Amino acid sequence: MPELRQDIISGRWVIIATNRAKRPDMMSVTRVSTVAKEKSCPFCEGHEFLTPPELDSIRLDGSKPNEAGWRVRAVPNKYPALGKDGDLISESFYGLSSADGYHEVIIHSPDHQTGLGEQSLEQIELILRLYRKRYQVMSEDPNIKATLVIVNHGKEAGASLEHSHSQLFAMTIVPSEIKLEYTVFDEHIKANGDCVFCDLISHEQAKAIRIVAENERFIAFCPYASRVPFETWILPKEHLGTFELSGDETIRSCSEILKKVLTDLKEGLNDPPFNYWIHTRPASQGDFHWHIEILPKLSVAAGFEMGTGIMINVVKPEDAADYLTTK
Amino acid sequence: MPELRQDIISGRWVIIATNRAKRPDMMSVTRVSTVAKEKSCPFCEGHEFLTPPELDSIRLDGSKPNEAGWRVRAVPNKYPALGKDGDLISESFYGLSSADGYHEVIIHSPDHQTGLGEQSLEQIELILRLYRKRYQVMSEDPNIKATLVIVNHGKEAGASLEHSHSQLFAMTIVPSEIKLEYTVFDEHIKANGDCVFCDLISHEQAKAIRIVAENERFIAFCPYASRVPFETWILPKEHLGTFELSGDETIRSCSEILKKVLTDLKEGLNDPPFNYWIHTRPASQGDFHWHIEILPKLSVAAGFEMGTGIMINVVKPEDAADYLTTK
Repeated sequence: MPELRQDIISGRWVIIATNRAKRPDMMSVTRVSTVAKEKSCPFCEGHEFLTPPELDSIRLDGSKPNEAGWRVRAVPNKYPALGKDGDLISESFYGLSSADGYHEVIIHSPDHQTGLGEQSLEQIELILRLYRKRYQVMSEDPNIKATLVIVNHGKEAGASLEHSHSQLFAMTIVPSEIKLEYTVFDEHIKANGDCVFCDLISHEQAKAIRIVAENERFIAFCPYASRVPFETWILPKEHLGTFELSGDETIRSCSEILKKVLTDLKEGLNDPPFNYWIHTRPASQGDFHWHIEILPKLSVAAGFEMGTGIMINVVKPEDAADYLTTK
Repeated sequence: MPELRQDIISGRWVIIATNRAKRPDMMSVTRVSTVAKEKSCPFCEGHEFLTPPELDSIRLDGSKPNEAGWRVRAVPNKYPALGKDGDLISESFYGLSSADGYHEVIIHSPDHQTGLGEQSLEQIELILRLYRKRYQVMSEDPNIKATLVIVNHGKEAGASLEHSHSQLFAMTIVPSEIKLEYTVFDEHIKANGDCVFCDLISHEQAKAIRIVAENERFIAFCPYASRVPFETWILPKEHLGTFELSGDETIRSCSEILKKVLTDLKEGLNDPPFNYWIHTRPASQGDFHWHIEILPKLSVAAGFEMGTGIMINVVKPEDAADYLTTK
């Protein structure tokens, strides 16, 4: 079973998930894209039997679960990094707990070749609607403290299957990177009485040197302290703490800006590998301001970055935004 | 000039170093090894004029600085991520400071082809002696709060030049990953009256399931909460806070175990890319227990790892240690 082990020196938690070593890409130098042929791809339409039984799907043709006819589909991850089974053998000296939670896959479309940004606006909307449904399911489990949807696009960004998909992780602890944001949010409210993300949006709108896209309900910009070249955040302009409480209009508006940003990154940077994730807070855990963080993978985090926790970024976010909006 | 920018949401600091964008590998998907031919390699003997003037070297033949004849050589990094020149333009909303400090290169040997672990024991000893000299120089600058020597081995680990070398970074702030260790160290002393690293060594010696090497003065083991497969730490068994206060016998013993660990990793894992760094604390900043952390680069940190700060490791450190010691 996956274990959550705590380093005694840094207090850092690590998931040891040896079941994932069965994955074909295990131990290769970089996670190799298996570039699954369409005929053997478990995410292609007609291959529903190759995945564990589906958790949910959106079907517009009245077809049944685990059959063809779906538009987006959620299934359990076959090699979960989270989940409970078997016993833990603990050493009292160290922190240890089972890595409880859920690890799911959300397949973006039946089509093997189409990347996320190339999907139609309607399809992206269906993907975000399925995200919302799965987040809602997670929010009903009182043990779940944090849920994260992520995308790994391209093998350099850690994708192990080519067919475009997201992964959902729901955990019984709040991971450090997320906790950091909650803490700053809470302290900012206490000190200033308002939301730090709302303040950030006002500042960026006033400066107008890092904005890459804006529509009725959303803004996208390269953050001031971008960790990597062309890092881009997407935020709802109206204060909204919890992703799964987004209404249909918000989901539609988000789909529109997400498609624009991903298209601009693809065209401007020659289809770069990238990662994105949603940071949000369950309503039961307090207020927040949900958003998407997109990090193109144009460089490698090396010894300095890992040994210090400080990223070295060789492109100013002002230059990145200028490039993306004037190219 | 390099800027140190603070993210308003996480409090995280980032170095924006656009001068490094001049590097030939800039903007490639992974930092491409330029595999500098020996005739154009700035680190090869006889090419001393291709680097900035040297800071230090160890020469056994009485040759002069910036000439052939050196055994190990320290020079300023040509594209520094740290350093001061020009003015900063700040936005009052955000944290900003100049990324002051030093960024140096320590060339491991005159020979282009020889990797670090393949150097003779005597050569590794010279490398560690030059580390010690440079750390001593840094400790004389009262503004320097943290100094870090790192190695990036292989292009997947971020090496941009093939000729084996280390980099030294000396900073006027204590980076988060290092601060975390200082904090845990200080709190452990306060709570228990002893050093957390000394306790860790005792525990690992007693369990004896994660040790990969041990000699008179040093121990090497795969830490309980290893972030990546085959992560290995090397620690002096005797309590010693500050690397540059290591005596000659300690340096020799460290060279021996470092050579053994690097050789075992190379032979066991087919010359994997890796990063290592020294974590130490300037004597002026308090007590500590210096050590080396080695992280082979066998997988990619993807969206989950970056969005949560939690690594997923598919190999138990007990299995890694068993593999390395019985192969």
